[in-house]
Amino acid sequence: MAEAVATLDGWYCLHDFRTVDWVQWKTLPEEEREKAVNEFLSIVSKWEKTAEEKKGSHAVYSVVGQKADFLFMILRPTMEELNDIETELSKTKLFEYLLPAYSYVSVVELSNYMGGGDGDPYQNPYVRSRLYPQLPKTKYICFYPMDKRREGNDNWYMLPLEKRRELMKSHGETGRKYGDKVKQIITGSVGFDDYEWGVTLFSDDVLQFKKLVYEMRFDEVSARYGEFGSFFVGVLADGDRLKTLLKIE
Amino acid sequence: MAEAVATLDGWYCLHDFRTVDWVQWKTLPEEEREKAVNEFLSIVSKWEKTAEEKKGSHAVYSVVGQKADFLFMILRPTMEELNDIETELSKTKLFEYLLPAYSYVSVVELSNYMGGGDGDPYQNPYVRSRLYPQLPKTKYICFYPMDKRREGNDNWYMLPLEKRRELMKSHGETGRKYGDKVKQIITGSVGFDDYEWGVTLFSDDVLQFKKLVYEMRFDEVSARYGEFGSFFVGVLADGDRLKTLLKIE
Amino acid sequence: MAEAVATLDGWYCLHDFRTVDWVQWKTLPEEEREKAVNEFLSIVSKWEKTAEEKKGSHAVYSVVGQKADFLFMILRPTMEELNDIETELSKTKLFEYLLPAYSYVSVVELSNYMGGGDGDPYQNPYVRSRLYPQLPKTKYICFYPMDKRREGNDNWYMLPLEKRRELMKSHGETGRKYGDKVKQIITGSVGFDDYEWGVTLFSDDVLQFKKLVYEMRFDEVSARYGEFGSFFVGVLADGDRLKTLLKIE
Amino acid sequence: MAEAVATLDGWYCLHDFRTVDWVQWKTLPEEEREKAVNEFLSIVSKWEKTAEEKKGSHAVYSVVGQKADFLFMILRPTMEELNDIETELSKTKLFEYLLPAYSYVSVVELSNYMGGGDGDPYQNPYVRSRLYPQLPKTKYICFYPMDKRREGNDNWYMLPLEKRRELMKSHGETGRKYGDKVKQIITGSVGFDDYEWGVTLFSDDVLQFKKLVYEMRFDEVSARYGEFGSFFVGVLADGDRLKTLLKIE
Amino acid sequence: MAEAVATLDGWYCLHDFRTVDWVQWKTLPEEEREKAVNEFLSIVSKWEKTAEEKKGSHAVYSVVGQKADFLFMILRPTMEELNDIETELSKTKLFEYLLPAYSYVSVVELSNYMGGGDGDPYQNPYVRSRLYPQLPKTKYICFYPMDKRREGNDNWYMLPLEKRRELMKSHGETGRKYGDKVKQIITGSVGFDDYEWGVTLFSDDVLQFKKLVYEMRFDEVSARYGEFGSFFVGVLADGDRLKTLLKIE
Repeated sequence: MAEAVATLDGWYCLHDFRTVDWVQWKTLPEEEREKAVNEFLSIVSKWEKTAEEKKGSHAVYSVVGQKADFLFMILRPTMEELNDIETELSKTKLFEYLLPAYSYVSVVELSNYMGGGDGDPYQNPYVRSRLYPQLPKTKYICFYPMDKRREGNDNWYMLPLEKRRELMKSHGETGRKYGDKVKQIITGSVGFDDYEWGVTLFSDDVLQFKKLVYEMRFDEVSARYGEFGSFFVGVLADGDRLKTLLKIE
Repeated sequence: MAEAVATLDGWYCLHDFRTVDWVQWKTLPEEEREKAVNEFLSIVSKWEKTAEEKKGSHAVYSVVGQKADFLFMILRPTMEELNDIETELSKTKLFEYLLPAYSYVSVVELSNYMGGGDGDPYQNPYVRSRLYPQLPKTKYICFYPMDKRREGNDNWYMLPLEKRRELMKSHGETGRKYGDKVKQIITGSVGFDDYEWGVTLFSDDVLQFKKLVYEMRFDEVSARYGEFGSFFVGVLADGDRLKTLLKIE
Repeated sequence: MAEAVATLDGWYCLHDFRTVDWVQWKTLPEEEREKAVNEFLSIVSKWEKTAEEKKGSHAVYSVVGQKADFLFMILRPTMEELNDIETELSKTKLFEYLLPAYSYVSVVELSNYMGGGDGDPYQNPYVRSRLYPQLPKTKYICFYPMDKRREGNDNWYMLPLEKRRELMKSHGETGRKYGDKVKQIITGSVGFDDYEWGVTLFSDDVLQFKKLVYEMRFDEVSARYGEFGSFFVGVLADGDRLKTLLKIE
Repeated sequence: MAEAVATLDGWYCLHDFRTVDWVQWKTLPEEEREKAVNEFLSIVSKWEKTAEEKKGSHAVYSVVGQKADFLFMILRPTMEELNDIETELSKTKLFEYLLPAYSYVSVVELSNYMGGGDGDPYQNPYVRSRLYPQLPKTKYICFYPMDKRREGNDNWYMLPLEKRRELMKSHGETGRKYGDKVKQIITGSVGFDDYEWGVTLFSDDVLQFKKLVYEMRFDEVSARYGEFGSFFVGVLADGDRLKTLLKIE
Repeated sequence: MAEAVATLDGWYCLHDFRTVDWVQWKTLPEEEREKAVNEFLSIVSKWEKTAEEKKGSHAVYSVVGQKADFLFMILRPTMEELNDIETELSKTKLFEYLLPAYSYVSVVELSNYMGGGDGDPYQNPYVRSRLYPQLPKTKYICFYPMDKRREGNDNWYMLPLEKRRELMKSHGETGRKYGDKVKQIITGSVGFDDYEWGVTLFSDDVLQFKKLVYEMRFDEVSARYGEFGSFFVGVLADGDRLKTLLKIE
């Protein structure tokens, strides 16, 4: 029996993908559309206050292609808060026109393959900055869920810890090569959602997502052991862009 | 030919996942929404009476993410009672707005890999408490269905009984490590639904679901032989929380 | 090249699963709902006459869980009759509220692995009773479609006839152990629907479905060569129960 | 690298499966339903003229089970004509009530495993009769798409030409055994639709579809290398039967 | 660990597939339908201006079969422009009747298996003409997404670079044989969409798509390492044909 590696777990995370029901949205009078957008933006203002108090973080992006139109990514200390936020959003006027497209439930996770330092890692400022991150406002976002494969001779969970550590080390090195250009947030979802992890990438250069994921695919960890779900790519939709996207002339 | 292990079977079990049709729900006048919620809560009161009489048990949770909004888990002595309950719910006002999202039909099951004691196990009070359980009101719930794999060299059903017993013993030990923090209810669904088992976990610490399922994944039983369906995670929605969640300001 | 075993083929079979559109059904006035149910029951009366004349058989069950609400299983001598019956049902008032959920097209089949007796089997009364069966009115029904696997080393269709015969013999013995408690009807669907066979089980003890299917899964035939579709379990819905299920108070 | 076998290609082919929206169809006044059916039948008349001029062929069948209600199979010399026909149908009154269920785009294909005779095969009358066939009006139709497998040791496209020729020869012999009872039309869809081939079978005895496909499954070509999509079975729906099927009393 | 090959990346690419909601489209008065088509064509005019300025390219095809009715393929220098274009389209009158069917997000890509010449390839006119292509107005289009397989012994990403180079060279030769008849545009989508590449083929002879893809399937690269998504085939729908297709008599 292989040994599980301990994880450090931070804020809970909801990725909420939504598709605009344009036909219905356009039937709403201009004034009511504005009101609906403003009601939503006032919720975002509350989220910003929460972020300032370091009690959570969030990101709003518009998604390219038909899979979804918007991604709302929300980080909070408890699962209840995520549940309350999705319920609050569901009751807004705007969300009568933002239909469910996909969602992912997870928790920010640091795996401990490389070992930790001394003392309680939850008190280590660097560790804390990664477990309770402020999401950057980069121009682009990429999200995908993934599993480690368990198939025939390619069974990650049957590998000895030493082998997994070695593979993850090499994998981490590929990641670090992109450290300047791409910020990665890994969230664990075993027991919470259908894949084992969610990967969220942030960058000001959308091409770096492709370069990073492609290069990593040649790492043995991905080549032999990675199973990937759907990929989503989005463009930052801060208040003004969100208003513009939803504006009907 | 491998030998099947006898199972002990208790109450029948329905997991009924529902998604709120918010757009329509909001069109209903406040007074009618309240009436609809109260009609539903009066059914829950009947369920509570049934539970007091030890003739069944139930749980109501709100689900995080878009897969569903509510989970109703119902245990009863017969399949007819489950069918009657789902039909009764379907006829309520509230369920005009709680659309089907997913369901699972099974029966509480104890597998007998470790052998039993003397006498009729169905008269053993400990066994009875597990076959006819009162569901705890923990803060969180986790549900997922699963199969034992039958693929190439990883075929659970071709293993000799002795090997399966040994693997299950090790698996059980992982489970027992979490015994204080997580209550597990295993339900069998061979012949009833698409997977072979349903696993329902209850805990006051949602992170324990992740830790338990992740650690178990390194057990050979899961690593080589586990096939998992969708995972659902929820927050307790007793009467007051359910009212709040469904309240439109 | 492995040799195919000849089959005996009886009545054509349609499993028609339907889901009630409760929201719309409830908008219909009580009187029209009754009329719709009675119109449907008058069709069932025609079916009963057909059954008395030994020109077919049928069964009506209510399905547990969200996959469907009702199962109509119809046996007839020709494919045209099945097509006519589904078209007649589609035109009834009731079926405006019984939406399609799943269906399966097949023909009652006896495989001939054990060899036959002398003479034309289609004249043998025992064979006839199995090819043209009157469906029993047991309290419960179970249905699932299945394939024989063709994967790598587990390829049923590459096995020599002698090996398949031996495996089927052992499999048949498991089935016969349950002969008193579970009636099995095997229907072949190669060329007619997406799986190769449909299995319909009838019993007055719903738990026997689980015990039978679970025990069979350890037979090498199922363990190595069985691929299963969705499982449906239902409760007998004769005229009165059907009326009750559809009754809105 | 294995060598591809040249194919001969004839008419382009559209299988268009449609499901009746009975609820809406019944709301249409009798007179308008008749008009809608007649408008459609006048298009069929044009198709019949095209068939008489040997510029195409077509077939109309009603499908058994919930997958679809009708299958329109159309053969034409160009892809544009298929596109024009589906567009013309989409604009008819009837097709407001015949919703899309499934479709398949392909081209009539003769593979050349057995070698050809002398001269330009496209001038050979026998070859021409198979590339530009007049669809028979048999009582039953069967359609399914299929791939040749490329998995591990069962990889059709890695086999040497000689081996494939030998396997196809044996496969063809099974087919020819049914030549009197079942007419087969193979259409190629590599580059056009999701599977590599479509198989359409015509017979006056529906049971022959099952016998043929089942016997072929034991050919190594199917047993090891066949991957099958959905199977559809239908009953001839010439003008009168189509009228009857769509008639609301 | 295998070495990734560097790619050259050009314009971002959106394939947007749409299905006409004929029932609703027909309810629109003729005049409004014309206005809706003209509004859309005025956007196409803007796209043509962009193409003349070499700042992008586009293509409009009608798709055969039920998967979609139209394909809009758009190339632009940035992801934001694609997002803006899909949003602009979503707000048009016409797109109230052109429902989402499928989409694909990618970027024009040249892989560098054969090595490059001297100097900055992004300044090489030939390379530029391929990275920033003007889409041809051929009569037909074919689109499909694909992956390189990572399964057991057929794992592309575990092959040494030299082996991959050799396989790609042979594959490229097959492609070049069709160079006169079929124009290929390869777009990379790792990190952007669910497959790793999109393949778009253009030809005046639709049969060449089948011949090319079929012949390539025997290349070891496709036979052992290719995993294919859905295939779409379409007919050029320039302004006049698009008007005709959408015209209701």
